[in-house]
Amino acid sequence: VTTDRILEGLARREPAALARAISLVENQSDGFEQVLSHAHGLLGRGGTRRVGITGPPGAGKSTLTEALIQRFRAQRLSVGVVAVDPTSPFTGGALLGDRIRMESVSLDPGVFIRSMATRGAQGGLATTTEEIADLLEAFGFERVLVETVGVGQTELDIARTAETTVLVLVPESGDGIQTLKAGIMEIADLYVVNKSDRPGADKFRQEVEVMLGIRRGNAFRHMAPHNPSDGRTGGRADSASRLSDGPPVQPSGRWQPPVLGTVATTGVGVDELTAALDRHYAYLQASGMMAEGRRRRLAARTRAVLERKLRRWLLEGTRVEELLASRLDELADGRRSPYDIAAEILDQVKAGGSATR
Amino acid sequence: VTTDRILEGLARREPAALARAISLVENQSDGFEQVLSHAHGLLGRGGTRRVGITGPPGAGKSTLTEALIQRFRAQRLSVGVVAVDPTSPFTGGALLGDRIRMESVSLDPGVFIRSMATRGAQGGLATTTEEIADLLEAFGFERVLVETVGVGQTELDIARTAETTVLVLVPESGDGIQTLKAGIMEIADLYVVNKSDRPGADKFRQEVEVMLGIRRGNAFRHMAPHNPSDGRTGGRADSASRLSDGPPVQPSGRWQPPVLGTVATTGVGVDELTAALDRHYAYLQASGMMAEGRRRRLAARTRAVLERKLRRWLLEGTRVEELLASRLDELADGRRSPYDIAAEILDQVKAGGSATR
Repeated sequence: VTTDRILEGLARREPAALARAISLVENQSDGFEQVLSHAHGLLGRGGTRRVGITGPPGAGKSTLTEALIQRFRAQRLSVGVVAVDPTSPFTGGALLGDRIRMESVSLDPGVFIRSMATRGAQGGLATTTEEIADLLEAFGFERVLVETVGVGQTELDIARTAETTVLVLVPESGDGIQTLKAGIMEIADLYVVNKSDRPGADKFRQEVEVMLGIRRGNAFRHMAPHNPSDGRTGGRADSASRLSDGPPVQPSGRWQPPVLGTVATTGVGVDELTAALDRHYAYLQASGMMAEGRRRRLAARTRAVLERKLRRWLLEGTRVEELLASRLDELADGRRSPYDIAAEILDQVKAGGSATR
Repeated sequence: VTTDRILEGLARREPAALARAISLVENQSDGFEQVLSHAHGLLGRGGTRRVGITGPPGAGKSTLTEALIQRFRAQRLSVGVVAVDPTSPFTGGALLGDRIRMESVSLDPGVFIRSMATRGAQGGLATTTEEIADLLEAFGFERVLVETVGVGQTELDIARTAETTVLVLVPESGDGIQTLKAGIMEIADLYVVNKSDRPGADKFRQEVEVMLGIRRGNAFRHMAPHNPSDGRTGGRADSASRLSDGPPVQPSGRWQPPVLGTVATTGVGVDELTAALDRHYAYLQASGMMAEGRRRRLAARTRAVLERKLRRWLLEGTRVEELLASRLDELADGRRSPYDIAAEILDQVKAGGSATR
């Protein structure tokens, strides 16, 4: 009944229904897959572009996101934002503070901003975030921004559920360039050096370009960048040296991630950023990478959904917990190991035998 | 054959065999569960204590770990260390730099230090870290330190695989106390304010104590700390005010996490830290929490191992990928959703039917 009401509300494009749908998905409450399944039928019609924005804390991502929203709104594009802070079990309200500062756009009915509470969320965060982005797209937002704080694997996985991934850095990022290893940098489609009016910004930007193989450098010539395994970004140019203002598509036809400078607080460089987003979108379409990436993400999602269903079935639909409880003494005194017992349970699950209720 | 040779080497206590066993586990190569299953039979004999150490980057964890190692060595205790940096896909060599600085102890044959490369490791990091700690314990190290950088859920999960969890903070941690929410702080058994000779350290330590309910404070009186859901730490004292140098066990018999000050670089406070570790160990034993925690961790591990086995079986032992490939067109054009298809596959897996090879 609740699910039906949410679906009706979504069809009438009621923001309250969208908020309820998101909560349903976030909490994986009854009917959440039904809502998502319905939303899936409304996706991929080409009216929506998804952009993932990530970077270390303090890089100014929220200010940059706000500037992007304003730019999109000036083009009369509606914008949905999902913001997630995977470190929130510890940092708590830090991101929420940023959200509040976004008030200039959050009162605009053409903008919908949702922060995700991740406390206690164990894994699956990228999947849930992508599902919420699905809801925003199905609702009809023309730009969907996925913002996440941090530069660990989780954060990158989240940002890369979008078609275009933007990595925001600042001149004083981490311990500087030493912490950015070749190859590891090749995780985004666009690099932004924010706060680029600060001392050292030009040098930092040049170092990032050297790292990406855009610019020839001495310091890093022994560090050959690796190609990314999924072919998402273009990898290194065949001729490693080109001007940073040159065309983003290499002679080989691959995308060369540009390194842009912005000052989000004053809006400097934001036009160039939206132009670069447009170029990347055009590249994805022309190269066939858009369709290919979409199929790859859908396959990955189905695997993730399957694993989630399987885990839930294992915990709720089988006798696993009973079996485990009955083996706990043997486990604790070393007669049995977690590996024996897991194998025993798995065999029973496979056989559809006594482990299944 | 390789597995047998590793097991023989481990029985002869050869460090090279230990290093190979760890690599086997880290890469989940053939036979890794056999080695771990064997190691499991050697655990829980009481000769080893495990300590997890976590905290934000720059808190001085590595220096503190090194100081702890030196203290343990002075007591003629052998020490195994597993260090893991969950953010390493991005920060790369940052932690490695710290390892190198630990050279003073790494040449000591009574000390074994292993850094874990986490690049590409998707989830399961806490399980793998705990498994490596198992190998170190089975090998006979009397102290096993699990060090991890960061304060997100992943890092906490890793540190909390140990019997005692130490959270290292510095006066300038994050944006200070504002980022540390009540309740969320109650994740460690011991809190260390390192670099406690810096200005503001006393105030910071007092604020942490207020947050933990050890000290009465005005600023945070509206923020009632939550009790941790797993009963690991003691929660708030019934009478919230006590001296910070008072006994760590509350009148209620619960453990009250102390807040210690250290200057790891000079060794100040390290004796107090080892004494507090001893007190926590004694508390765990006397209260029965040691045995209880061990059983809880073994059950959690078995569940994690089962999920890992199941995931692997799903990917390698079933026709899931074929099924998925045959449905990809329907997925992409919106006729089918990831949820329909996952449900279809799960039904077949449950039935032991055509999804199973």
